[in-house]
Amino acid sequence: MPHRPDLVVFDVNETLSDLSALAGRFAEVGAPSHLAATWFAALLRDGFALTVAGANPAFAEVGTGVLRGLLASHLPGQDLDAAVAAVMAGFGELGVHPDVVPGVRALRRGGHRLVTLTNGAAAVPDGLLTRAGIRDEFERLMSVADAGAWKPARAAYEFAARQCGVAIGDTLLVAVHPWDVHGAKAAGMPAAWISRDAATYPAHFAAPDVVATGVDDLAAQLAAG
Amino acid sequence: MPHRPDLVVFDVNETLSDLSALAGRFAEVGAPSHLAATWFAALLRDGFALTVAGANPAFAEVGTGVLRGLLASHLPGQDLDAAVAAVMAGFGELGVHPDVVPGVRALRRGGHRLVTLTNGAAAVPDGLLTRAGIRDEFERLMSVADAGAWKPARAAYEFAARQCGVAIGDTLLVAVHPWDVHGAKAAGMPAAWISRDAATYPAHFAAPDVVATGVDDLAAQLAAG
Repeated sequence: MPHRPDLVVFDVNETLSDLSALAGRFAEVGAPSHLAATWFAALLRDGFALTVAGANPAFAEVGTGVLRGLLASHLPGQDLDAAVAAVMAGFGELGVHPDVVPGVRALRRGGHRLVTLTNGAAAVPDGLLTRAGIRDEFERLMSVADAGAWKPARAAYEFAARQCGVAIGDTLLVAVHPWDVHGAKAAGMPAAWISRDAATYPAHFAAPDVVATGVDDLAAQLAAG
Repeated sequence: MPHRPDLVVFDVNETLSDLSALAGRFAEVGAPSHLAATWFAALLRDGFALTVAGANPAFAEVGTGVLRGLLASHLPGQDLDAAVAAVMAGFGELGVHPDVVPGVRALRRGGHRLVTLTNGAAAVPDGLLTRAGIRDEFERLMSVADAGAWKPARAAYEFAARQCGVAIGDTLLVAVHPWDVHGAKAAGMPAAWISRDAATYPAHFAAPDVVATGVDDLAAQLAAG
């Protein structure tokens, strides 16, 4: 457990939002629901590849491009524009995981400053947290669009700490994705891994400082010191 | 079409080797065969993430780690070591696509120097090309393990050109993966995209200089000038 963080930096997609509803969107347009997992992995693969090659692409643009390619091979002869739009619209209507609202409120009661940092657009957590009734608990919603590079690039984590006027070692990244935990750690930012489904943490990534089963459990662990 | 390349730099996984046999390996260990696509996308996602964060991991190590995580959630209570080993062993027994042997022989008849550059170990193309009877057509098998960074990092393409004593603009990368084409182009290396299944090239990546339906078609296009 790192010392008490001044600033808790939440990842958004899958960490706060429940992406499982997206599988249903694939089924609704006539594609196999298991494509959702391949799509999200391929979206990040392509976004990271662009980052490696020096670009800082828009998340929705990469998501749309990868989705179009996947659906083209599964829905020959269909209206791809409509299918792509139907799945992408799902991103704007997601809910939060059940542990998020009580966890966020407990962290605020504990006096922690809360912000988000996403590889997507800042409008996504704005809508997500507003629908969940906890938008006002967050003082800032940040996007890597303003940081110069996607997470897990060092620049993204440094940007978040700098924007909030906090030394990077006094923050705590909270993410469900091991690659995000790894990037934070490599940048000098302590990190908590949210493991909702008792997943195994991959040995090829730097280990988290905290492992929690949800945001509520994280709040309890931070309160216990 | 770029001017005649002095050196043709082949990607290996999926560009030369036919990965479709790996889906059967998943089925053999009791997992859904569609997991193969998610696995390969997630393997590259994690490898690129590590590259973004400054590491240069071993391909097989990342592949094993991602595979273990995926299989754990699909094969609860089973012997994961055996299942992981069974799938990973498939990598060492792949064959080449039908267009590869005639295409490689035609390129050699045309006087092109041929090499490979893989994010994996150089032993993989060595076995693959030996089994296909075309190992001797390649003068060098390179791995990013010696380049300092995975493709699509600029350093990987520069390494390949430098090792072969050729100006990067006088080479041609050949790859089935758009992210590889993009990385090469960003590094100043012309690139050919192999599109065996009439896939759509994603708009978020730099466009290839040549599009070919297979290595045989590429050889014909280069011969036609």
